[in-house]
Amino acid sequence: MEKIRRELAVRAELSKSRRCRVLKTEDTMSIAENVGKSLTASSWIRKMFEEGAKLKARYGAENVYDFTLGNPNVPPPAAFKQALAETAADPAIDHAYMPNTGYPETQAAVAAQVSREQGTDLSETDIIMTCGAAGGLNVILKAILNPGELVVTPAPFFVEYRFYAYNHGGKFATAPVKSEFDLDADALDKAIDKTTKAVIINSPNNPTGAVYPKETLDRLGDLLSEKSAAHNQIIYLIADEPYRKIVYDNMTVPPVFVSYPDSLIVTSYSKDLSLSGERIGFIAVNPAAKYKDDLLAAMGFTNRVLGFVNAPALMQRVVAKTQGQSIDISEYARKRELICGILADCGYEFTKPLGAFYLFPRSPDRKDIECVKILQGERILAVTGRGIGGPGYFRLSFYVNDDTIKNATEGFHKAILETKK
Amino acid sequence: MEKIRRELAVRAELSKSRRCRVLKTEDTMSIAENVGKSLTASSWIRKMFEEGAKLKARYGAENVYDFTLGNPNVPPPAAFKQALAETAADPAIDHAYMPNTGYPETQAAVAAQVSREQGTDLSETDIIMTCGAAGGLNVILKAILNPGELVVTPAPFFVEYRFYAYNHGGKFATAPVKSEFDLDADALDKAIDKTTKAVIINSPNNPTGAVYPKETLDRLGDLLSEKSAAHNQIIYLIADEPYRKIVYDNMTVPPVFVSYPDSLIVTSYSKDLSLSGERIGFIAVNPAAKYKDDLLAAMGFTNRVLGFVNAPALMQRVVAKTQGQSIDISEYARKRELICGILADCGYEFTKPLGAFYLFPRSPDRKDIECVKILQGERILAVTGRGIGGPGYFRLSFYVNDDTIKNATEGFHKAILETKK
Repeated sequence: MEKIRRELAVRAELSKSRRCRVLKTEDTMSIAENVGKSLTASSWIRKMFEEGAKLKARYGAENVYDFTLGNPNVPPPAAFKQALAETAADPAIDHAYMPNTGYPETQAAVAAQVSREQGTDLSETDIIMTCGAAGGLNVILKAILNPGELVVTPAPFFVEYRFYAYNHGGKFATAPVKSEFDLDADALDKAIDKTTKAVIINSPNNPTGAVYPKETLDRLGDLLSEKSAAHNQIIYLIADEPYRKIVYDNMTVPPVFVSYPDSLIVTSYSKDLSLSGERIGFIAVNPAAKYKDDLLAAMGFTNRVLGFVNAPALMQRVVAKTQGQSIDISEYARKRELICGILADCGYEFTKPLGAFYLFPRSPDRKDIECVKILQGERILAVTGRGIGGPGYFRLSFYVNDDTIKNATEGFHKAILETKK
Repeated sequence: MEKIRRELAVRAELSKSRRCRVLKTEDTMSIAENVGKSLTASSWIRKMFEEGAKLKARYGAENVYDFTLGNPNVPPPAAFKQALAETAADPAIDHAYMPNTGYPETQAAVAAQVSREQGTDLSETDIIMTCGAAGGLNVILKAILNPGELVVTPAPFFVEYRFYAYNHGGKFATAPVKSEFDLDADALDKAIDKTTKAVIINSPNNPTGAVYPKETLDRLGDLLSEKSAAHNQIIYLIADEPYRKIVYDNMTVPPVFVSYPDSLIVTSYSKDLSLSGERIGFIAVNPAAKYKDDLLAAMGFTNRVLGFVNAPALMQRVVAKTQGQSIDISEYARKRELICGILADCGYEFTKPLGAFYLFPRSPDRKDIECVKILQGERILAVTGRGIGGPGYFRLSFYVNDDTIKNATEGFHKAILETKK
């Protein structure tokens, strides 16, 4: 034991002076190889954050215009705050396990809301409450993927999809979208092979702001029906919809359930109630799905064994009381006008987003890494399109303070001149 | 499209009349094979629940004595309720993302508490807040397991460990414990092979109630040091400790961090604050762990990509204020005396649990399935030991109402006579 004591003391000392060494391969024997590789591969994100942090330290956070964040900054609606305070103060409620799929009252409230949105009758058992949409996507993919089966998504895409597919032994492929960011059925047709088990779509889209119209969804439904029949393998359509309520100009997001039977919706209250940290969302299964009961049983199981067990209890009770509520979208609508106006004035090319709170402009010189570096020189932080399946573009999140947008005007202007040199 | 509309209508009708068909292999093509197999393999649990539900429907729930549940029924401490109500009503707090590893204030509060318990100095960055211990175990195993690497645990064991290992491509093996349920280092020695990456221990133990003494942990630490050196591969000791505060007769649970450097604690507030539904817990990494920084970076990543993203925000704020608090253990202590008294009077053989809230008696005839069936005949619901790595035993959870225990007395008495026929 004396040997171990000594080693403990030495290691404690070493540990204090040791910095993160993830990128040195000789040190990764202790962690999973694929995780080590992912950390190395995503080191550019860390580097980008570090650059941003340096800028903030040098010039002061208020003088750096950070458009990289994914965190809503509009407060939750008053109805949520009230429901939360009431529920938390209620001496009668407990905080114990409920069925893995959620409180039946919550499932019923969600089913009623989804039924209204989808024009399809869902019952409470068609809903599984989850730890957000990210949790829900993992629950779905673990439930359906055999090793080597493919998940396809249109690009650009929410980067985490790739990890979610890999988590459960899946493969991952993308298909480009059209120039105005609508789905390209021909590209998807090419990307879907015999091993394909699921297509994930995200509408309103991060990062493009596209909302897929009904005709597009119908066409996609037809394609998936044909492919499923041809491959003798159901291809699930997974609609990731956290931005459903964040839409502009009186747009509504068309329902996927009427366009394709073997479809699931996965979403969260992260954006529409500004609850991203609370990890509360749900999966809804199309009542018309051929193997609905198998799917639901499988997902009840995977929700449990992945360690989610059940969605957080208190927030389940709260969201049951706030169905249909949403943050004040006019705040985001105003910010959208503001940033679109400034970027248009500067001469950036972009498609005005129909939903979500991202702008995805073209890099003036088509080299998004260069462009993001030039923006950084103007103390503007943006995300390169290359890292999210959209080379030649960059992403700006506009859920930032109005001042951040206004004060970046000069920088945006200088940067576009710089890229055109 | 008309074809799809018709199919939708037909399926909607079919779906209404369809019952769960998970066990029919011809219908599982839509879900992952391994998930389908797990559902089939665990059908005995469902069957057991169904039997219990039938009994409750026939005799009334109050006349069925259900000792199978895993849900604490003692209310959270008053300090928790107060902290929750205050936090929820605070207009200043938001519910947005924080760093994936948690709020620094919460990490700091947890680090201080773990430092006291483990006699080792932890800093806030040694803590990762998680969605409960189940979430934490998945985060750890995904971070360390390469395909085919082995996780070893003493049996009987918490059944979910097996699934957690499989989730991340791992293998799973068990080593029997000694007759009084202490760890058997020789058995572990045999079970640990060159592919072993982790040993999970659970003290106080579900289902045996054992608390491993310091000498046992030191012996285990020596064994793991030897094996790690021999195999040129660190074997992590993962201490799953949700019952740390649920101990009796002034027992304390010895710290693992001083017994072995490459160790992690994973736990939750599910039992000690009766918050099982809220999914809040943490991972603590031994500051002396050789690759501590790699581990922490890997787990920050796996916490994110597995879809947990971060532990629920509000509960993180609340537990930061309730460190060291616990439910009224005397309630469980009383129930323990009550059930132990009754079972001893009836003539059952068992080791009095030192912690947790389970009793793990021998089946009088050594056939636990028969015994559980006979108990069912007396309207007593128990879990067979066979399903949890302890054949010849059965498990009774004693966090039930006192009346449930008292009213089951006659049944326990009759059952032991029946098994001895």
